[in-house]
Amino acid sequence: MLCLKVQTHPEWLDIAAANMPAIMRDHAHCEKKAALNALNLIMRYPDKTALVREVITILEEETAHFKLMVGELEQRGFSLGLDKGNPYAQQLSSIVSKQEPQRLLDLLLVDCLIEARSCERFTLLAASEAIPEDLRGIYHSLMASEEGHYMTFVDIAKQYFPTEVVEKRLEEIATHEASIVRALKNFPAMHG
Amino acid sequence: MLCLKVQTHPEWLDIAAANMPAIMRDHAHCEKKAALNALNLIMRYPDKTALVREVITILEEETAHFKLMVGELEQRGFSLGLDKGNPYAQQLSSIVSKQEPQRLLDLLLVDCLIEARSCERFTLLAASEAIPEDLRGIYHSLMASEEGHYMTFVDIAKQYFPTEVVEKRLEEIATHEASIVRALKNFPAMHG
Repeated sequence: MLCLKVQTHPEWLDIAAANMPAIMRDHAHCEKKAALNALNLIMRYPDKTALVREVITILEEETAHFKLMVGELEQRGFSLGLDKGNPYAQQLSSIVSKQEPQRLLDLLLVDCLIEARSCERFTLLAASEAIPEDLRGIYHSLMASEEGHYMTFVDIAKQYFPTEVVEKRLEEIATHEASIVRALKNFPAMHG
Repeated sequence: MLCLKVQTHPEWLDIAAANMPAIMRDHAHCEKKAALNALNLIMRYPDKTALVREVITILEEETAHFKLMVGELEQRGFSLGLDKGNPYAQQLSSIVSKQEPQRLLDLLLVDCLIEARSCERFTLLAASEAIPEDLRGIYHSLMASEEGHYMTFVDIAKQYFPTEVVEKRLEEIATHEASIVRALKNFPAMHG
């Protein structure tokens, strides 16, 4: 699936299904952080017109997903609550270069990998009979959107770097991502 | 108008009309910062369900305005470009308490004042024959939206603080805001 080099361990889905409020909260926070991340990209590269244009659309969609998930939490009597952080995303970001223009490429491809992994996990949630039917419908719709974001980040990268450079670095970051996923403890979080 | 204690100096409108690309860029950055500010409020108060719900809607609208203004810039051949900062908003924020719960009240009311001032300036731009007609239409539509945000921030404050406390503090912050506006140099920025 996508550019991922390892599949999510089946145990994660069992743990997710048994802890849906935790998964929903963590997912809402992931959407919020994706919106924040989009804003950060725009603030860092305001002169890159194509990047700004594409990333604003991602910002709009992440904001809509954030609103959707906060509404789903509220309907069930839950607040958004504290953000417990995302060790997966933090570890993944350790590969990002501090030097431009490599930094731009790395930021885009790390975002691409996060979207790809989210897409994989939404696919698992959408297909599982252990997940309430209304939520499965939501995860199904988000799955397509995250796949679109994954492709958009690669497309943006290809507007600023040669295709072969993008593809080689995507391979490296996907390998790094797989090693992080293999070591995850399968706790109840979107990227747990 | 609204809670403002001083009107914008007429010179500002002349300078704005003579520097529309600069105004449009600065305005786009203001919408971006309003979106960022909405996210920051949510991140600071994730357990306040009513605040989170209301501020997500503001986040959605600021994001849509940001997209609109970046599109208008791009149509005219301009990139978003560097954010030159907003000394008005920085000075206004100096009144915010570092202690909770006063901090929450102050953050909401500073946001309220910024929206009110933006609304006043959109009203001036929308009514001026020196501004291109298509932009006047946009400013007219934004005027109503910013007025809504102004009221939403006051409404949120009243959900967490007694009405008389909110109104007294709004008076104080409006007085602070007026002293800042009186000292502005009328440079080509939304809050210049």
